[in-house]
Amino acid sequence: MAEYKAPLRDIEFILNEVFDADSIWASMPATSEVNLELASAIFEEGARICENELLPINRSGDEEECQFENGNVTTPKGFKEAYQTYAESGWVGLGGDIEFGGQGMPKMLTVMFEEMLYASNTSFALYPALTTGACLSILTHGSQALKETYLPPMYEGRWAGSMCLTEPHCGTDLGILKTKAEPKGDGKYAITGTKIFITGGEHDLTENIVHLVLAKLPDAPAGPRGISLFLVPKVLVNEDGSLADRNSVSCGSIEHKMGIKASATCVMNFDGAEGYLIGEENKGLAAMFTMMNYERLSIGLQGIGLGEASYQSARAYAQDRIQSRSPGGAVNKDQVADPIIVHPDVRRMLLTQRVYNEGARAFAAYVGMWLDMAKGHEDESTQKKADALVALLTPVAKAYFTDRGFDATVLGQQVFGGHGYIREWGMEQFVRDARIAQIYEGTNGIQALDLMGRKVVANDGAAFGIFKSEVEVFIAENKEAGDMIASLQTALDLLDESTQVVLNSAKDDAFAIGSASCDYLDLFGLTAYAFMWAKMMVTAQGKEGDFYTSKIAAGQFFFARILPEAHAYAAKVNAGSDTLMSLEADLF
Amino acid sequence: MAEYKAPLRDIEFILNEVFDADSIWASMPATSEVNLELASAIFEEGARICENELLPINRSGDEEECQFENGNVTTPKGFKEAYQTYAESGWVGLGGDIEFGGQGMPKMLTVMFEEMLYASNTSFALYPALTTGACLSILTHGSQALKETYLPPMYEGRWAGSMCLTEPHCGTDLGILKTKAEPKGDGKYAITGTKIFITGGEHDLTENIVHLVLAKLPDAPAGPRGISLFLVPKVLVNEDGSLADRNSVSCGSIEHKMGIKASATCVMNFDGAEGYLIGEENKGLAAMFTMMNYERLSIGLQGIGLGEASYQSARAYAQDRIQSRSPGGAVNKDQVADPIIVHPDVRRMLLTQRVYNEGARAFAAYVGMWLDMAKGHEDESTQKKADALVALLTPVAKAYFTDRGFDATVLGQQVFGGHGYIREWGMEQFVRDARIAQIYEGTNGIQALDLMGRKVVANDGAAFGIFKSEVEVFIAENKEAGDMIASLQTALDLLDESTQVVLNSAKDDAFAIGSASCDYLDLFGLTAYAFMWAKMMVTAQGKEGDFYTSKIAAGQFFFARILPEAHAYAAKVNAGSDTLMSLEADLF
Repeated sequence: MAEYKAPLRDIEFILNEVFDADSIWASMPATSEVNLELASAIFEEGARICENELLPINRSGDEEECQFENGNVTTPKGFKEAYQTYAESGWVGLGGDIEFGGQGMPKMLTVMFEEMLYASNTSFALYPALTTGACLSILTHGSQALKETYLPPMYEGRWAGSMCLTEPHCGTDLGILKTKAEPKGDGKYAITGTKIFITGGEHDLTENIVHLVLAKLPDAPAGPRGISLFLVPKVLVNEDGSLADRNSVSCGSIEHKMGIKASATCVMNFDGAEGYLIGEENKGLAAMFTMMNYERLSIGLQGIGLGEASYQSARAYAQDRIQSRSPGGAVNKDQVADPIIVHPDVRRMLLTQRVYNEGARAFAAYVGMWLDMAKGHEDESTQKKADALVALLTPVAKAYFTDRGFDATVLGQQVFGGHGYIREWGMEQFVRDARIAQIYEGTNGIQALDLMGRKVVANDGAAFGIFKSEVEVFIAENKEAGDMIASLQTALDLLDESTQVVLNSAKDDAFAIGSASCDYLDLFGLTAYAFMWAKMMVTAQGKEGDFYTSKIAAGQFFFARILPEAHAYAAKVNAGSDTLMSLEADLF
Repeated sequence: MAEYKAPLRDIEFILNEVFDADSIWASMPATSEVNLELASAIFEEGARICENELLPINRSGDEEECQFENGNVTTPKGFKEAYQTYAESGWVGLGGDIEFGGQGMPKMLTVMFEEMLYASNTSFALYPALTTGACLSILTHGSQALKETYLPPMYEGRWAGSMCLTEPHCGTDLGILKTKAEPKGDGKYAITGTKIFITGGEHDLTENIVHLVLAKLPDAPAGPRGISLFLVPKVLVNEDGSLADRNSVSCGSIEHKMGIKASATCVMNFDGAEGYLIGEENKGLAAMFTMMNYERLSIGLQGIGLGEASYQSARAYAQDRIQSRSPGGAVNKDQVADPIIVHPDVRRMLLTQRVYNEGARAFAAYVGMWLDMAKGHEDESTQKKADALVALLTPVAKAYFTDRGFDATVLGQQVFGGHGYIREWGMEQFVRDARIAQIYEGTNGIQALDLMGRKVVANDGAAFGIFKSEVEVFIAENKEAGDMIASLQTALDLLDESTQVVLNSAKDDAFAIGSASCDYLDLFGLTAYAFMWAKMMVTAQGKEGDFYTSKIAAGQFFFARILPEAHAYAAKVNAGSDTLMSLEADLF
């Protein structure tokens, strides 16, 4: 019953009008052949497959769930057929490297398609998302032979990928993992151990699954510097690329979860499975981290997509459902009640959803742009700046998109009243599906520690200074554009001040970073959205038409009713670590 | 796997040390025989049944769900036996009227037991909760004959109750309901119509179910002033109280929901069913509203209970799960990692849960106290003041307990990382079960409208002034007690200022109330918790022992890290209605 149409007009507004993507793409060799016309064609085709093939099996997939029997996982009805259509249309390789059969589209473009994918069917979206992540690791760190053997069928969607990191006793703290890799002498390794929470570890969508597995060599140093990365295919591959025997890797069971029930979350057992080293020995974590920024941004998009799907459904319901009268007098005089969208509090919920979604969508394009520049800009100083911004902004995007995306799905459910709690309407599934995005791919608490510790304090605020100047340049150029510019400046000042507070306190308080991190990330994310909303409002000003009227109204709501939270976050950051650390652990 | 022990020490602290319940109870005839010794015995026995009988069937009940077949509802395994034990021990009538077999315990006491009940098994708790609600309506507005026939078996738990309000086309707006009541000439009525979302409308726990049904008489005026309340038993009752034939009321189906899956949510069909008027014709809504304050407070307790259960489980996990090292250096040197409770951000999550739960528990006692005084205080001015405070504070309690309770369950789930998303750990069930409390018994948006419109603006802030003086008296008496007193004053000032802003703007802006309501309720709730935390800290000061050390530390966390949100809420309230109302409905 959920309603969802890909937000093509807003995507076009962001890419074309707000960011002038054409000139960005033209400025880099890798994207010089990409343009908005091509992008529009891709989005239209993408919208079609999302709306027509994936959305219709979203609810049924949730009810049916994946089934496990004798080591095999069966995806819900319709998933296999939809995946075949999806793969055959070339979507898996959309952002893949051209040399190995990918389509080479920039991240600034693919973020928009990924959002649609998560919006229409998050469980489905995860199968190709994990393949994309695995491809990126192979592309960046794998040998030429591994790339030639594995990337083409993965981009084609004939083979899928999985990322095998977590073990029963370790998730965040990968340094203590136990999976072993024994060199077999022929350049191959025997991988033995158990991995849990493996998304797409086993399923019936593809003829092969390529597992990227973190494991320890026999003589590896302890801790995170002793971890290596291996490629372990489900089915071994002959030299000619054809499939040979099953490898000694198997699925032991699947998890029963709160949501994303049509996505198989597997326990994977490696029993001396044949594997191939990716990158250097003991540098597996570093190899994982290079693809991390792409994957984290991608998981952030799950928050936006589900927030958007929830918004569109809630908007339709609020325009349709009649209940009580407008406080300003009946607007629907020939019926017994008015549509609930007349009520200010219903509007508050809808507008909150909307400003989260659209602020995030613009910020996703912004971070995607810097990712593309970090990868392919020829000017060294721009490339370096892009590197710093990507590192800084990615944890903000992942955590803030998914936290506010979750909030958005809860608000959308609330608009439906009691009907929102009933499964058939689909609103509660959005909440359950959105919840995982705050947890996996590094919990949002870990994102915040990464931001505050590695990305802000570790470089003494240098990367933050780059972002700050970006905002300041915009403010300087648009001083007269309206009240929102002063509000943006206030938020930036609060963020800047909190940054300095933590930089100072971190010098002699080991707990300063962790005590500030989550509220600091919230303050950062909120300021980033304010930056995006101010940019969007400036872009929309003076243009005629409903789209621009609506955009400016939403922006005004953001500055009046959402941005004031900045003061609360700043006060929390600045409160320091005392009240968190004074209580003995056993007195909780 | 969830851990839960009834928080008996905290309950004792709140009732005895913070509020001196003994002297309150001694001051009123209806409670003069109640004392803390008796209360402790009740709580210990209550804790036993909750921990030993209800908690063990909470997870299994969620997995099994209620089953529907041929009009019959089967509750999950163990529910029937647990209910029998529960009823036979007299728990259903705990707060019931003594004249009809109840135990007459005050609300200030029963809130604590209700919290335990929701904590250990919310689905189970709802069956007796609805019975209690129905009893209250019968007691307050029913004829002596109805009371004598129905109350004793309901207090005994032999018969259950249900409240039949919602219809497919109306929930909040009951004025447009369609269920008909035709007078049959013998003082009885024939009730015809369909009700939905009826909690406990049908089940296998009791031999009879007493439905309280809102319906319209043939000549009733339109709107809310044309609604009457009827008692419609599932099985008709002979004059001697024995059961006769089945009445023409049946369950058409049950809903498949996000949570509270072991609670039957029924579609109920009334097909000329025999019913008896409760109260006066066309005054059904008023009759419902008199019991509403009790029921709303009760649903608020669901938020506290689930927040507490989630907190206790998360605390145990954080003390046990080892992962990474403390930023201050290893504390667990003989193991590979430290328990995650060493991390400030994990502590932030746990402490946030805790201050929500304990602030709410104290406020529940406070509101319960005023409910008891409103019902039974002999001094007329105290009784009137209590009436005003109950009306004002109940919507705050219902909405703020359940909103923050939901947040608490989400935080507890987050502490578990990926394991929190897996069903077997039970943390995600708390989230799903808590979510409904924000929706039913009047959505929290409706609570906020009730607060802002009927309870604040309608009496021009008079009731708010009474609450404000209560806080001011406390502040005046404890001026030197610590920094928290000044913080409480700041929050009270913000709340007072926002109250005045809305009182003014409501004079010429029809949308002022609805635009401010939700943020106003949040500001009110936060200030109420600050009041409670300041009271608890003052009470704990100067006393020795871990309990008091821990209580004061939690309070310091509350004032440093939670109360700053007051500024954001106030800014939102004061922003007015423009940004909510300017956008045309079709431009959303």
